[in-house]
Amino acid sequence: MKGTLIGVGTGPGDPDLLTLKALRALQQAEVVAYFAKRGRKGNARRTVEGLLKPSVIELPLDYPVTTEIDKAHIDYIGAIAGFYEEAARRVESHLSEGRDVAVLSEGDPLFYGSYMHLHVRLAPLYPTRVIPGITAMSGCWSQAGLPIVQGDDILSILPGTLPEAELVRRLSDTQGFVIMKVGRNLPKIRRALAAAGRMDGALYVERGTMENTLTRPLCNKPDDEAPYFSLILGPGWQDRPHEAVA
Amino acid sequence: MKGTLIGVGTGPGDPDLLTLKALRALQQAEVVAYFAKRGRKGNARRTVEGLLKPSVIELPLDYPVTTEIDKAHIDYIGAIAGFYEEAARRVESHLSEGRDVAVLSEGDPLFYGSYMHLHVRLAPLYPTRVIPGITAMSGCWSQAGLPIVQGDDILSILPGTLPEAELVRRLSDTQGFVIMKVGRNLPKIRRALAAAGRMDGALYVERGTMENTLTRPLCNKPDDEAPYFSLILGPGWQDRPHEAVA
Repeated sequence: MKGTLIGVGTGPGDPDLLTLKALRALQQAEVVAYFAKRGRKGNARRTVEGLLKPSVIELPLDYPVTTEIDKAHIDYIGAIAGFYEEAARRVESHLSEGRDVAVLSEGDPLFYGSYMHLHVRLAPLYPTRVIPGITAMSGCWSQAGLPIVQGDDILSILPGTLPEAELVRRLSDTQGFVIMKVGRNLPKIRRALAAAGRMDGALYVERGTMENTLTRPLCNKPDDEAPYFSLILGPGWQDRPHEAVA
Repeated sequence: MKGTLIGVGTGPGDPDLLTLKALRALQQAEVVAYFAKRGRKGNARRTVEGLLKPSVIELPLDYPVTTEIDKAHIDYIGAIAGFYEEAARRVESHLSEGRDVAVLSEGDPLFYGSYMHLHVRLAPLYPTRVIPGITAMSGCWSQAGLPIVQGDDILSILPGTLPEAELVRRLSDTQGFVIMKVGRNLPKIRRALAAAGRMDGALYVERGTMENTLTRPLCNKPDDEAPYFSLILGPGWQDRPHEAVA
């Protein structure tokens, strides 16, 4: 009997934003795997603190490198590809012996999640299910009470790593937007928003739904520092609340 | 004492995809309001069946018109604007007397949710909190095990109501995509996907996470019939799983 691979979305950080399905999977899991920086638990593991059973086997998958290294660098490329292969083999060693493995994934597993690197390698070989999670962006706009898109709005989800001109082009051509991976890209993103005429209403959120969260209009947020996982939200539905009035 | 307005995301349909926070809010709610077609419970109310307390006051907000009427028609526009005002007044009558009102919202309240029409009218006047929910799209790609976006991918969320040329332009210019509001727009969407070269890998999902759900490659789905709330998913991350290998 093969074990089942279970991608478990742990949501944006607040443990109360776990789904009932995720909670049950975590309480039953024989093996729990999670990606993290070496020596750290990581947000997903922190979110589920106290929910796992005492006999659980924990399988931390420690990144060999961090986001501080240039992703185009040959050392990074080689290290990370080998790392995902090895992580898949470590998870597989449990699956092949019949133990189910729950892989924790911040936010939603198939939406920019590291879990995907295991999924594409192991889902063809083992029974697999994926439990969706509340995304960071959804946690952020809910916490801020910010209506993001309505009706026939388009929503563009953009990585802050895009070149400035590309950001300007796309921000000029959408109703709602979410900019991910802000971090060191903040000054560039700010220039792009200004050029696209979208600074108005743009909201900066860091550590959404966590205890030390910070939300402020982007125009009041200095460029000095921003965590990699902060977001910028731009609401569509500009003509609310009378959008239905001719 | 004013009551609190609580937007509660009920997720895509499977009650196990409620969050712990949503469950608690529903179990404690004195008043539960929800939008629905006249004479029907609607998906959000069906999802929470059996979870409300016996003494709950239910406040169904029945749409005066349905999606079958042309939204540009003057009768629709007048009826719907008046309807949202009246719905807000009905909810407010409880808030002003100190009763908390939980407003059920399929998926996520601030992501294309009808709840938003109450939020923009009442959040400036009453204490308000929003509990995010699993979106339909997230329920769909999780159920299908479809990695949607990774790394520096862009995700475009597009209403199927867009003109065909506009769909072609946007589908040609994104990595991942989600097309909402498929319904009668399916033949047009199919033509647009073909013109944009994105039929390959496009997945049709109807009633995601519900008991009678249907998932199939779009190329195997006839144009005959599609519910309004079906989705089409297009995965980014095309070069997986070796995206990190030079």
